[in-house]
Amino acid sequence: MAVVIGFIPDEYGEAALTAGLEEARRRQTGVVVVNSTKGDALIDKRYVGAEGMSTLEQRLEESGVEHELRQTMGRDIADEILSVASQVDADAIVIGIRHRTPVGKLIMGSVAQKVIIDATCPVVAVKP
Amino acid sequence: MAVVIGFIPDEYGEAALTAGLEEARRRQTGVVVVNSTKGDALIDKRYVGAEGMSTLEQRLEESGVEHELRQTMGRDIADEILSVASQVDADAIVIGIRHRTPVGKLIMGSVAQKVIIDATCPVVAVKP
Repeated sequence: MAVVIGFIPDEYGEAALTAGLEEARRRQTGVVVVNSTKGDALIDKRYVGAEGMSTLEQRLEESGVEHELRQTMGRDIADEILSVASQVDADAIVIGIRHRTPVGKLIMGSVAQKVIIDATCPVVAVKP
Repeated sequence: MAVVIGFIPDEYGEAALTAGLEEARRRQTGVVVVNSTKGDALIDKRYVGAEGMSTLEQRLEESGVEHELRQTMGRDIADEILSVASQVDADAIVIGIRHRTPVGKLIMGSVAQKVIIDATCPVVAVKP
């Protein structure tokens, strides 16, 4: 049992990380932070590099929450989050999602939508 | 501060109610249960009748969680949930959503999608 956090190195990932750590504290459990890339781009900004991983690891250490960091390449990001959630029998999945822009249409990112619909555990959607 | 629960008298509402009460316990706060109808149908199954309200009130009493029950008519259901969440400065909103059917498309209900995108607090999506 753990809280699974979908992490990308931007404001959405930050929001998910912060909320996920709080969620884990409330549930008195640990977190599994998932960072993936489909690997279909030479440079994927959503993928955390070596330096970023070190910073992330340090933040997780400082949080005092039991944690694990999983980085994978080549799979669909939503599938990866769902797969990890299933493996660890997740209490909840936390993901960061976009606000609607003031003049924006009602569109949810495909990763978020897939995770929310296909997860068998509660999914917490948070915003930066 | 409170956990706002979107409630309709079916398995999705039940899932939201159960998860919402747990969420409130973990957050050591109360719940505001919102049940609304647009009022555009003579009989709206999502609207809780007098008997249902009494049962719901009793369940909330038994939960021991501080609670409030708001029933409104004539407004968009998502707007109503978001409006209550804003009024009470919600810690989180809990809604029940559909699983994807085995051969189903990736479609999220419009109420769920609107609440998740437009909420300014975390939204917890749970399944029956």
